Amino acid sequence: MQTGVPLNEAHTEASSREMQTGVPLNKAHDFQVRKLEVSDNSKGFVELLQQLTVCDAISDENFEARFQELRSLGDDHVICVIEDTTCGKIIATGSVFIEKKFVRNCGKAGHIEDVVVDRDYRGMQLGKKVLSFLTDHARSVGCYKVILDCSNENKAFYEKCGFKQKEIQMAKYFI
Amino acid sequence: MQTGVPLNEAHTEASSREMQTGVPLNKAHDFQVRKLEVSDNSKGFVELLQQLTVCDAISDENFEARFQELRSLGDDHVICVIEDTTCGKIIATGSVFIEKKFVRNCGKAGHIEDVVVDRDYRGMQLGKKVLSFLTDHARSVGCYKVILDCSNENKAFYEKCGFKQKEIQMAKYFI
Repeated sequence: MQTGVPLNEAHTEASSREMQTGVPLNKAHDFQVRKLEVSDNSKGFVELLQQLTVCDAISDENFEARFQELRSLGDDHVICVIEDTTCGKIIATGSVFIEKKFVRNCGKAGHIEDVVVDRDYRGMQLGKKVLSFLTDHARSVGCYKVILDCSNENKAFYEKCGFKQKEIQMAKYFI
Repeated sequence: MQTGVPLNEAHTEASSREMQTGVPLNKAHDFQVRKLEVSDNSKGFVELLQQLTVCDAISDENFEARFQELRSLGDDHVICVIEDTTCGKIIATGSVFIEKKFVRNCGKAGHIEDVVVDRDYRGMQLGKKVLSFLTDHARSVGCYKVILDCSNENKAFYEKCGFKQKEIQMAKYFI
């Protein structure tokens, strides 16, 4: 499994993106792909999630409580983050949880959720790295498949990551 | 939460379906909606799942091991079954597991999986009963939404159960 891998990346298409995003690209970034740590609440993890959906700031106490709940699930729930170690900021994330079934001969399915790359860091293949981390994890614990739901807009990205459209997602909201 | 509710149902559209399925409908069935029990391996639970997807017979030992794994998750993983108590057969099922998130202010999402009604008992609103059981459970433990994936063919059924199409499902199979 990939974890704690520093990814030195020299970016060539720097100038136009740098002008758009304000992220300096004329130097090598140090990107570290790893599991979420409890200290990541102070590194912009929640602000990153706010780019995805509704998420108010989380107190350190509530963050740690949820972190420990998830950690108690061990390999059955893993959150991947990418940190730009040059500025100590979490700039990509995604999670996978492992569902244990009776079908498929007591098989297991990985469910990928809440994938987001900071808008200032898009186009750098970081989403692919998150997907690889999560997919590799699901495979390593014996899943027969890994699934996720996405918008039509993001379908092409997931196809590049080796996914194929299978069904449709239905939802019922309580709040 | 609905559980252990005997559902005496008088069926009016009996004759044509009876001819198609061999299920005698000229009498009231006793349908019991409840959580899966370990003894359900001998009541046709796995044979029912085989109508849904690949699932070889499961030995009592393996069934009990998976059953206990899931039971240890408590309210975070619930399998609903409907038993036709007139013949001691499991004739519908579905599961829901509760995903704990950081988004939505440390919210929870219910994931419904592996819903199937025995082909001899379709058209009796049993799928709706399974969905209500699972949806009520997700709501009762504080989920902000419940989601599931289905084929286009089954979309209308889930719409009748109050679901709306939201996204598309992408999958990667390892085996």
